[in-house]
Amino acid sequence: MGQTQLLATTTGPAASGDAACCGTLTTDSAMGRAQAEATAYLLKAVADPVRLQLLSLIRAAKDHEACVCDLTPAVGLSQPTVSHHLKVLTEAGLLTRERRGTWAWFRLVPSRLDDLAAIFR
Amino acid sequence: MGQTQLLATTTGPAASGDAACCGTLTTDSAMGRAQAEATAYLLKAVADPVRLQLLSLIRAAKDHEACVCDLTPAVGLSQPTVSHHLKVLTEAGLLTRERRGTWAWFRLVPSRLDDLAAIFR
Repeated sequence: MGQTQLLATTTGPAASGDAACCGTLTTDSAMGRAQAEATAYLLKAVADPVRLQLLSLIRAAKDHEACVCDLTPAVGLSQPTVSHHLKVLTEAGLLTRERRGTWAWFRLVPSRLDDLAAIFR
Repeated sequence: MGQTQLLATTTGPAASGDAACCGTLTTDSAMGRAQAEATAYLLKAVADPVRLQLLSLIRAAKDHEACVCDLTPAVGLSQPTVSHHLKVLTEAGLLTRERRGTWAWFRLVPSRLDDLAAIFR
């Protein structure tokens, strides 16, 4: 998904429906349903305190990358729990994963953070 | 909540835990748990397609305000459902609510959208 803003132009009105009683609302510049679904999926991936901490730790790390062996003690949770949260972030495109020997390393995808900031600009 | 960034300075490390095996991670500039909880609460309020559409419609409206009577047909859902979503957004500080005669009107709080964008900058 590219830049998706709350006011992004859509291919049509937000939804069809009955005529409004006050009629002061314009819907043609509002977010359409499909775009809203995709944006909500991305936001749900980060709307979790542990995942926000993991993103923050990786963002602060050298080269924006970190080993799961360092992330696990840093958030004080079990490795399976941390791995689950890292998988959610990876599936949402916010991290990439690379195996190095015994351990998995995770690297931030900065453009995906830009996508998140752009939603609310 | 004010400006809360993924890299905001915290009062301490992200969490205590065992010594890391690779030891390449610095935690002192990462988001702390309390800050992560507050940020996740705000993100959960917007991580829903209907709520994103409602925010988008209100943001596009004249004076950034809209009547529930116009928002309901615009998203094509029942009024109780739309009122529930508007309540979640209002409780998260993203909207303010005002009764005018029969109807409730909702107005955007732009500074709260700025808070959301700032998380990912």
